[in-house]
Formats: sequence, structure tokens, C-alpha cells
Amino acid sequence: MGFQAIPALDVNRHLIGVPGGRAALATPALVVELDVLKRNIASMAKRCADAGIALRPHAKSHKCASIAKLQRAAGAVGFCCAKLGEAEALTAAGVSDILLTSPVVADQALARLSRLNAAAEGLMVVVDAPEMVAKLGAAARASGKTLGVVVDLDIGLHRTGIAPDRAADLAVAVAGEEGLIFEGLQAYAGHLMHLGDAAERATKSKAALAMMAGVRDELTRRNLPPKIMSGGGTGTVDIDPAFGVLTELQGGSYVFMDREYNDVWTKADAKPPFETSLFVQTTVISAALPQLCTTDAGLKSFATDAGPPVLAKGAGPSASYFFFGDEQGGVLCGEAADRPALGAVLSCVVPHCDPTVNLYDAIHVVEGDTLVDIWPVEARGRGF
Amino acid sequence: MGFQAIPALDVNRHLIGVPGGRAALATPALVVELDVLKRNIASMAKRCADAGIALRPHAKSHKCASIAKLQRAAGAVGFCCAKLGEAEALTAAGVSDILLTSPVVADQALARLSRLNAAAEGLMVVVDAPEMVAKLGAAARASGKTLGVVVDLDIGLHRTGIAPDRAADLAVAVAGEEGLIFEGLQAYAGHLMHLGDAAERATKSKAALAMMAGVRDELTRRNLPPKIMSGGGTGTVDIDPAFGVLTELQGGSYVFMDREYNDVWTKADAKPPFETSLFVQTTVISAALPQLCTTDAGLKSFATDAGPPVLAKGAGPSASYFFFGDEQGGVLCGEAADRPALGAVLSCVVPHCDPTVNLYDAIHVVEGDTLVDIWPVEARGRGF
Repeated sequence: MGFQAIPALDVNRHLIGVPGGRAALATPALVVELDVLKRNIASMAKRCADAGIALRPHAKSHKCASIAKLQRAAGAVGFCCAKLGEAEALTAAGVSDILLTSPVVADQALARLSRLNAAAEGLMVVVDAPEMVAKLGAAARASGKTLGVVVDLDIGLHRTGIAPDRAADLAVAVAGEEGLIFEGLQAYAGHLMHLGDAAERATKSKAALAMMAGVRDELTRRNLPPKIMSGGGTGTVDIDPAFGVLTELQGGSYVFMDREYNDVWTKADAKPPFETSLFVQTTVISAALPQLCTTDAGLKSFATDAGPPVLAKGAGPSASYFFFGDEQGGVLCGEAADRPALGAVLSCVVPHCDPTVNLYDAIHVVEGDTLVDIWPVEARGRGF
Repeated sequence: MGFQAIPALDVNRHLIGVPGGRAALATPALVVELDVLKRNIASMAKRCADAGIALRPHAKSHKCASIAKLQRAAGAVGFCCAKLGEAEALTAAGVSDILLTSPVVADQALARLSRLNAAAEGLMVVVDAPEMVAKLGAAARASGKTLGVVVDLDIGLHRTGIAPDRAADLAVAVAGEEGLIFEGLQAYAGHLMHLGDAAERATKSKAALAMMAGVRDELTRRNLPPKIMSGGGTGTVDIDPAFGVLTELQGGSYVFMDREYNDVWTKADAKPPFETSLFVQTTVISAALPQLCTTDAGLKSFATDAGPPVLAKGAGPSASYFFFGDEQGGVLCGEAADRPALGAVLSCVVPHCDPTVNLYDAIHVVEGDTLVDIWPVEARGRGF
């Protein structure tokens, strides 16, 4: 029949620059407020500059080359990617100086790493297992270029990383492998990111980073001082830089923020260091009952690991959002007057930004009520 | 630099037909066992034929034209789509006779519906609000064709649907609107789908369908008998057809099954009526500790609303899977001997199939250990 579906990236393109275009988006739509996004990027850049620490933002949060370029323009030294597929997509979109923060292990992944290294500028990858050194060396040599390697330390999360007492030997092995360049250490205390008690977060973060400093000191004694000490995240941004262990910070979610990260500060009666720039816009598609209505954004439209979204605009104060199955959301209202009408457009703060962004092909960039751009999420779905 | 990222759909294409190719997939990968999928499709077709009921499978589960075509070949009368974007993508891929099961309300959506109706064969859409009849009529007339309309009933879920006592008037309004054809009724008792107590599921499903029968009888008295009575789902497949109310069944998840649907039967000591055909394949990327290892599939690789995945292959009996953040999974083992090695390939039953499939661009089709095809998930991410 020749029918062509308009791609997700283009379905709202005709609304760019049209007055009131934001309210007319096909929904559910991922929306970013550009002024807030830029303030967050500038604020993190200043925070790092003031602390004398470099910023290597984690691209796993946004998976979007357009945002990476704004971060670079604000002084980022490079980027982190969580997955090889993510690094491939962002390299293809012109992003360079990527540190791949997860170990690359499988043969097919090593072959892809080699191909990527041949093309990418400033690529680095972590390693946490001695048996992978020779394989990474072979991948580097096959690429025709050296490959930067960072030793990943386990400082308590037990997710990836080598035990600190075995790390120096691994670094020495990397340095001795033809084709590999030992660049430094990575450590991520992810288990501390969302601790609501600020004092506990500080004490534990300091102890975790002290393990990293111990490895650095041992390597310095062995004449292999790490060039970079990479780690930290949005949840410990007000703590980690002061300890003087990290040379670069890896935060990612700060560009967007979400309900979960906001809680880290608000539950301790503090103001979050960044503002919320990311929203999911949704439309009321059924409103037959007085205190309940149904939207078009359910659990396929939000990451659901951190509870329901928070209504930001479009409903009265007694309204709360709940997941109403895969395809729909529900808005339950204590007061009937707070219930949005059929066709009303609502805006939600997402519970957890990174995996929510991963559900969308496009970021709709708005200034006030105007849609000003649509950015592709180039690395969406590239978890492999 | 000219680097091109291999698209997700093609990253494993070189493995098609290669012996042992299944174990070499770039992971995380969505995998379907073709023989099981075909048995599920045949089994549901036979079940419906035996009960004298038509089958209109819900495509929201697989979002994949290749699977829709297998269902059609097994006798499906058409398909359901949850979202307009899904219907657009599947129509473009050659799928016809789609019933859009969610109300279309927003102006931009009505314009897209009109464009789709002009091209699609046998399109139908639900309505649950009297104020939408004129707008749907205008969309139909703008498309140059009539549009089939099904009145959506609320039989207790309160998600979408008009109250049964107002439904007949809505059907009459539809029938009187130029451009619209009243086709029948839809009702979905989603709140009953996962009830573990089979007797309770039967009693409540019967009562819910009795409401639908009441509207049918009223419409018959008013000389507007519904042509189709559409509803039901995988969770009530062994119950609903027997009541003689539905003329067609809407189940979707039966093609794949998942941990949650399997529990509906296994918790009642019954055998699920369908087999599990869908898996997420993942690789161990870190294994530094004796009873714990880390995989490359975290909460961006599974829907997380129904608990953790279940390990099907690759780890010993004391192993269990947990979400280890956005990017990784953890496998915790009571016995060290059960812990998979670095690089081991694991296979997981997904907790909830529909939103998990929505995370992937490609379905890797396997027969035994061989990758035999890669199917695009054409409607992935098209929740708008």
C-alpha cells in the first residue's frame, strides 16, 4: 500500500517554532527544558572547576550527542559510556575521548572494540580481570593503534572492579602488554549514591575513596603513577571532589535530575544542586469518572524501578500518578476539581532518568511553550 | 572519521546459520525460540477454533510484523494495537485489520488516525466518550473512507471504557455519525488477568462479561446488534471463551509468556497453557568474587515492574538474578560451584514480556543453538 510510518524522531518536527507547539506534541514525549539543561551543565562545570577536578560526564544518562556537545563546550575533558554499543553510536555521532566504564569480555565485543579503537579518538576501556589483559592487547594491536586502559577498582559496590590489593599488579600487567597504555584508575561507589543521610554519605564516600588512594600510592611507589583517577557521580558531587583523590568526576544524571536524585537532597531538607530539566509529557485519553482519569503513558513510557512519576503540571494538588498497566497511567485525585479533563496535557518528573531516556528515540527540546529542536537519542537501546 | 555504528538489527546478522551462533550473540539480546513460538501460536489458534471464537491477537506484546504474519497464517482474523504509533508501524510493515484498543483523543492523533485510515485495510478504533464521536467522524470523512468504531466498555478495571449503562447510547451516536461504522463492543478485565485463584478468576470474569452481554442485548433490542464482541487476554484464556459472550479473543503475551504469566498457573499448581519462548541472553562481564558475578543486563534490559528475571540456563541451581543497577545484573549463588565463569552466557526468563520487548530493536530467532533469523521490532518505542 506504500504507507510509511513517520519516524519517532520526526513525528513532531512540524511543530518546531510553532507557538504553543509544546502542548501539541504527540505523546508520550520526552521533553527537556533547554534553559534548565544549560544551567545544570554550567553549574556542574563550575563546581568541578572550582574544586580543581576535571569533568568526564557519563553519557549513559542522555545517550545523546547533542547534549554531549554542550557538555564539551562547557569544558568536559571527555565522556564515559557504559556499553560498547553506546560508545559506537556516540563515536559515529562525533563524540570523542570516551572511557568505556564496563569491562569488555566476550570475543565479539573485543572484535567490535578493536574496530571502534581504529576509528575513535582518545578511546579508553576499563579492565578488572588479569585474564583479559592479553585479549585487550590483541584487540588493540589488531586495531593498529594503542588502546588506553583504566583499571576498575571494587571499593565496596562489588559490581565490577578488582579488589584493591590486587589492582596494582593488574596495572603493571596492563603497562607491560604491547598495544595497551595504562591510564589510571576508576572506582564507583554506586552503593552510596542515594544515601539520604548526608553525613553517612560523606563518611562512607571518604572511606571508599581512601581505598582508591591506597592503590594510587602503591602504583606511584612502583613507578606507575595513574594519570587519571576517575569516579564519583551525581549523588556525591557535593562530597567527593573535596577529598582530593579523584582527578575527574563521572556524574551523568545531573543534566536531567529525577525524583530519585531530588530525594537525596530533599529528604535531608537540602536543596538539590541541580534543577529538573527532564519531563515526560502525556495526554488524558479517558476521563469517565469524577476523581480518576487515564493518560497515554504507562510502564512502557517510564522506568519503573523507582516508583511512579510525579505530576509537575496539568493537574491539581490532590492529584497523584500511578502506573495503570503497560500502556496507560492513572491520575487519582482527592478532589474532583483537580482532575484533568479529557485531552488535557500533563507533565511528569520521571522517577529515574537514565533508564527512562533509554525508552525514547527523541528528546523534544523546549524553551517555554515552544518546541525549539528535536535531538536523536543516538545510543538508545544500545545496551550491547 | 566516517565511523558507522552497526545498527542493533544487524550487529548479529553475520551469525545467522553459523553453528553455535546463538552463544556468540552480542548481549544483552532478546531471543525467541522459534519452535516454541510456533507451538504457542498454533495452540492458541486451536483453543479458539475449538471454542468457536475468533482470535485477534494483541500486537502490543510483540510489536513485530514477522510474528503477526505467523499469527495470521494460523487463522487470526486481525490484530489489536495499543497505540496509534504501533498501528502506523505495523501497517507500514504490511499488517492489516487492526483494532486500535485505546481511545484516540488529541487533535494531532486524530489527524494521524485519518492519514492511517486512508491507507490501512480494515482499521477500527475504540471510543469511550460521547464528545469524541463528531471528531472521529470528521477524521474518517477527511480520510475519504469509512472508519470502523468499537465502543469500549468499562467492566470494572476503570482504565478506559464507558459505563455499561451509557454504552448503548454511545453506540447509537456512532452509528448515526457520517463516516463511522459501528462494529461492536470491547471490554477488557485487566484487573482479573493475574489472579492466582482460578475459581475467583472464573467467577469474576463471568460477572464482568455479563455486563458486556447486557449492553449487547440492549443494542440488539435497539436494532444495532454488535458485529464483534472483543476482549479477554492470556490470563483468562482458559475461562472467557466458555461464557459465550466474546466473539473474539485479544490475548497477546501467549506467544512469549513470562515469569508473571507463568505464575498465574503455577501458583495454582496448574500447567501454564503456553510455553516460554522468550529469553534475554546476557554475558558475565565480571566475576571477582566466589559466589557473585555480574552480567551485562541490568534494568535497562528488562522491564522491572514484575521483579527480577529468572535464570533459565547458564548457572547452577542455587543461583538467582538481581538487578545490579541500570547497566548490569548480578547473579548470587548459595554454592560457589554454581557461579558462572567470566564470559559465561546466561539465559533469563523475563519478568514481564510486553514492556521488555519494547526495549529491543531486534528479536533474535533461534532453533536450538542456531540463530536462524533476526526480526525487527517495528513498533518498538512507538507508544505515541
